[in-house]
Amino acid sequence: MNYLPINFKDKLAKFSEHWSPRVVAEMNDYQFKLVKVQGEFVWHDHPDTDEVFIVLEGTLDIEFRDGSVTLGSGEMFIVPRGIEHKPVARDECKIMLVEPKGVVNTGDTESDLTAENDVWV
Amino acid sequence: MNYLPINFKDKLAKFSEHWSPRVVAEMNDYQFKLVKVQGEFVWHDHPDTDEVFIVLEGTLDIEFRDGSVTLGSGEMFIVPRGIEHKPVARDECKIMLVEPKGVVNTGDTESDLTAENDVWV
Repeated sequence: MNYLPINFKDKLAKFSEHWSPRVVAEMNDYQFKLVKVQGEFVWHDHPDTDEVFIVLEGTLDIEFRDGSVTLGSGEMFIVPRGIEHKPVARDECKIMLVEPKGVVNTGDTESDLTAENDVWV
Repeated sequence: MNYLPINFKDKLAKFSEHWSPRVVAEMNDYQFKLVKVQGEFVWHDHPDTDEVFIVLEGTLDIEFRDGSVTLGSGEMFIVPRGIEHKPVARDECKIMLVEPKGVVNTGDTESDLTAENDVWV
């Protein structure tokens, strides 16, 4: 039989909300999530896990308390566990996150931007 | 300070060997590896872990005992643990693998294509 790949563009076309991660795949107890982001997120950290950011389209800044990193398409960065960070995108940016199942997008920070978890697309 | 992103194109320009995974990042006990592939790999499986294939450039077929999947740029597929598979690329293809640290590229299959593990680029 012909199995079907997961196509990032196709999956991204199925939702428009910003800062609302959509799960596209699960590897062991980790999830791959697509997210459209625009504007400023909230400062937060994930005390128990590193977090992978991969930019698929656009430009993403990740601010840290001691600096920042700018990611373009085809670039990734891993935010170490426990490090406070704030993603910022001047224009809409499409990214993929990789992190353990159950990680909340705003960490322990209470925010209107806290998204429902484990939503698949 | 300005932190530096991991740029896939820059990393891929630094090696030319086929079927020789190069680690570019570590998230918890998982690794992100870039690989250039061309031709037929060997049938193998990974009994203890799923394995993520993401195509960055080119076309990759993954054959299974009961079918196959074809991946283009911007597509991914997760081979479940224990499932025999054989990657095949007619022309050179650039991919990213995500899997736990320590996974050998040919699984338990002895092959000339078995690569040294944990080689960073």
